[in-house]
Amino acid sequence: MSSELRTDIGSSTPDTITVFGRDFTSEILGHLSFGDMAFLELTTRLPTPAESTMFNAMLVTLVEHGLTPSSLVARLTFLGAPESLQAAVAAGLCGLGTVFVGSIEGTAKMLSEAMPLPAEDRAGLANAIVDRFERDRAIIPGIGHPFHKPIDPRTPRLLALARQTGFDGPYVALVQEVAAEAERRKGKSLPVNATGVLGALCCEMGLDWHICRGLGVMARAVGLVGHLLEEMRRPMARKVWLDTANAATRHVHAN
Amino acid sequence: MSSELRTDIGSSTPDTITVFGRDFTSEILGHLSFGDMAFLELTTRLPTPAESTMFNAMLVTLVEHGLTPSSLVARLTFLGAPESLQAAVAAGLCGLGTVFVGSIEGTAKMLSEAMPLPAEDRAGLANAIVDRFERDRAIIPGIGHPFHKPIDPRTPRLLALARQTGFDGPYVALVQEVAAEAERRKGKSLPVNATGVLGALCCEMGLDWHICRGLGVMARAVGLVGHLLEEMRRPMARKVWLDTANAATRHVHAN
Amino acid sequence: MSSELRTDIGSSTPDTITVFGRDFTSEILGHLSFGDMAFLELTTRLPTPAESTMFNAMLVTLVEHGLTPSSLVARLTFLGAPESLQAAVAAGLCGLGTVFVGSIEGTAKMLSEAMPLPAEDRAGLANAIVDRFERDRAIIPGIGHPFHKPIDPRTPRLLALARQTGFDGPYVALVQEVAAEAERRKGKSLPVNATGVLGALCCEMGLDWHICRGLGVMARAVGLVGHLLEEMRRPMARKVWLDTANAATRHVHAN
Amino acid sequence: MSSELRTDIGSSTPDTITVFGRDFTSEILGHLSFGDMAFLELTTRLPTPAESTMFNAMLVTLVEHGLTPSSLVARLTFLGAPESLQAAVAAGLCGLGTVFVGSIEGTAKMLSEAMPLPAEDRAGLANAIVDRFERDRAIIPGIGHPFHKPIDPRTPRLLALARQTGFDGPYVALVQEVAAEAERRKGKSLPVNATGVLGALCCEMGLDWHICRGLGVMARAVGLVGHLLEEMRRPMARKVWLDTANAATRHVHAN
Repeated sequence: MSSELRTDIGSSTPDTITVFGRDFTSEILGHLSFGDMAFLELTTRLPTPAESTMFNAMLVTLVEHGLTPSSLVARLTFLGAPESLQAAVAAGLCGLGTVFVGSIEGTAKMLSEAMPLPAEDRAGLANAIVDRFERDRAIIPGIGHPFHKPIDPRTPRLLALARQTGFDGPYVALVQEVAAEAERRKGKSLPVNATGVLGALCCEMGLDWHICRGLGVMARAVGLVGHLLEEMRRPMARKVWLDTANAATRHVHAN
Repeated sequence: MSSELRTDIGSSTPDTITVFGRDFTSEILGHLSFGDMAFLELTTRLPTPAESTMFNAMLVTLVEHGLTPSSLVARLTFLGAPESLQAAVAAGLCGLGTVFVGSIEGTAKMLSEAMPLPAEDRAGLANAIVDRFERDRAIIPGIGHPFHKPIDPRTPRLLALARQTGFDGPYVALVQEVAAEAERRKGKSLPVNATGVLGALCCEMGLDWHICRGLGVMARAVGLVGHLLEEMRRPMARKVWLDTANAATRHVHAN
Repeated sequence: MSSELRTDIGSSTPDTITVFGRDFTSEILGHLSFGDMAFLELTTRLPTPAESTMFNAMLVTLVEHGLTPSSLVARLTFLGAPESLQAAVAAGLCGLGTVFVGSIEGTAKMLSEAMPLPAEDRAGLANAIVDRFERDRAIIPGIGHPFHKPIDPRTPRLLALARQTGFDGPYVALVQEVAAEAERRKGKSLPVNATGVLGALCCEMGLDWHICRGLGVMARAVGLVGHLLEEMRRPMARKVWLDTANAATRHVHAN
Repeated sequence: MSSELRTDIGSSTPDTITVFGRDFTSEILGHLSFGDMAFLELTTRLPTPAESTMFNAMLVTLVEHGLTPSSLVARLTFLGAPESLQAAVAAGLCGLGTVFVGSIEGTAKMLSEAMPLPAEDRAGLANAIVDRFERDRAIIPGIGHPFHKPIDPRTPRLLALARQTGFDGPYVALVQEVAAEAERRKGKSLPVNATGVLGALCCEMGLDWHICRGLGVMARAVGLVGHLLEEMRRPMARKVWLDTANAATRHVHAN
């Protein structure tokens, strides 16, 4: 239990604003991009150019996935409360749990627990990981994709960016080893998907796995605002609702 | 009522992902920063370099305001449901309504309704605006600040960036004229605050005022994740709760 | 601004729990029904038998409306975060804004502002109300229904309960007068709907109009849990999502 | 994956509303209390008198716990978005996760998995349960209380109601056996708390453990509306925020 109230994120006086120990107006505003500001929030320091490139790409990967359950939720909420755009985004974020965005966190947890420090024997680590998931009858996060075949098209691009920025380190190698081992055992294609690479990259960047879901949350908040803008201009929520309600009560009205 | 279900934001095939008409992996991922991706969501096109600079600065202004009601909400929610980081961020966003973030929207609405097209007579427009708010006994959005005195330190920096990027146009001038007119009538200092400049800049960029609150929502989502990370490392929510509960029931226990 | 932290709702000692000044275990638990407990929350006192009957009926009216945007939101959120049932209900509540549940609040506000104290000239009051809404080009809350024709079937039942419990007072009369006046002017049928009667009944019970939306929120929370239970047993959210996403991107894939 | 869209909860025609197969206006409205309506949502049938008494008491237990993190969240959210009462309640619900309300679910899961069918050897079952939690180094849900000592005052009252209504069956006995076994091993007092009895009563009533958190969610929604009403009348959120922000940045301003 905490014995004190203390934040080191930000403070203000009547004529100054300090954020993470920096004068906001002279050192941050106009100097940092939005993505670099997000990096500052997650690490309390500024990114190097390589970190900035990689981290921005990671966030961009998560912004927009088209019509998802989450963007439908935002649109349907906006239908009932158009005066509360913030609540529509909030509702959309509520569903970013274990099923969708959670696999970044799951991958980062799996990799960082298996290899708290970079290790030599990656094949052995991968074997032990796959053993454990098999024993627990659990799904290995970050590999395979229900729709994108033969591979998630984001994977090779993210891996190329990782090489280019020097982040293709031991965790990126390990997640690929895990996928290869799982493929050998199952006898089917289970390539690393985008969330698998992202989880590994979180580890490469030294981010605590507990916060990795946060990348998806901040990125998706951006995308949800885009969906609400489209909903304002070409609404679909009412039709989704009425069509669904009609279809779901057809068995009653048929009598 | 919409007669069709249609989105132009994104779509996928097994081996491609298209976002706003662009191939995601070859044209967006690794090419756009997170802030530029947000611009794409709000305008469906890529920003010019000047737009990128200005828009990123606008978002960065809104990311972090230290301990706000919103960041306290995220922390207190996380205390009860640490397994649902997304719900803690969502809870924090729910309070970004008319009182705090709403003044960007209010300013953008006020300015864009007064001047749908750039006009000559800005003094006359400002007069009419202040007249209307006085008649409605309503608070003029975007001017004055309860804490930052004599001026909001972000205002001159944002105005300088607006000049530098060429966005110091008629809406930026009009909001300053409104502040000056209000100051003349009230006889007290009511300078344009950060949300006032941001609202004017939204107009300069051609953003619909209905979506302006969305800038605050997406930016604050980033900041809330930062607060949850600090809460994990140095928790304060439990103490805030218990101290408040004790203080608020002292009158009972004193008997 | 408040100068003290104080709640009179509840407090505890190691061996007692006090709620609204009553010993919880000996005076409330097992003595009050759930609906009467809700009445206690909104009035800080226990209901009379007539109040209990009427208030429970008001809440029951609001619990379940079948497949609404709100229940779809809860189901779609649960699809992504089945581990956070509370966040799925929360997401569903976020859309209970001005468009749907808001009309209870709107009716209660309209009636209580027009008649802060019971008045003789109801026809005059109704005239003035309809005048004002016509002038503001605003929709009169609580009358007409897009689907239930010729009348909302809940209206006569609620009015009968109001007579039976003695709550068919001046506000119930006024909302009917407003509907009659609107019908005369528009020349079409605009009978009082369920939210119109509920708004009037809130006034009869002395509830502040600011809290009337709360009745809908608490009632709908109950209904949303029921929808999540059905979703667990016979899921539809995934199909709603995939069917919608397919339909909404058909124009792309058709190329 | 579901192959059809279908709900059996509710449907409407222009002049009828059907809920769980009953005509809403003639069979439910004015006939069922709010608590009994909640029972209908969770079981799709009407309660017996004994079920009604017990179920209403269970819900009432969960409505009001004074100033909790959840009620603080609702109040702080309302401070920023007073126009969105529903979003303030939603934000408050988001924190009803594993830490607080989750122990009802945890208890119900623990008991129903240990005893899918009523069994003779309760001591053996209790032993096996405590063994498993010890092996997993997990906290046994539903026993002990950080504040209420020597016992949670709601426990004996709930147990008396269970006896009175005939719900003091094998699950209620088992949770007490688990507490006794845990006390023997730890050598300290760990009596069944209110959530422990509630979890056992959910099992006695045949409720699926997956939905048990829903009882807390629906009940707390009622209590949160009460807190928002008090916040309107005697606000404390602004002071909580400013006092916390001041205390948490004192180390900065002291320089």
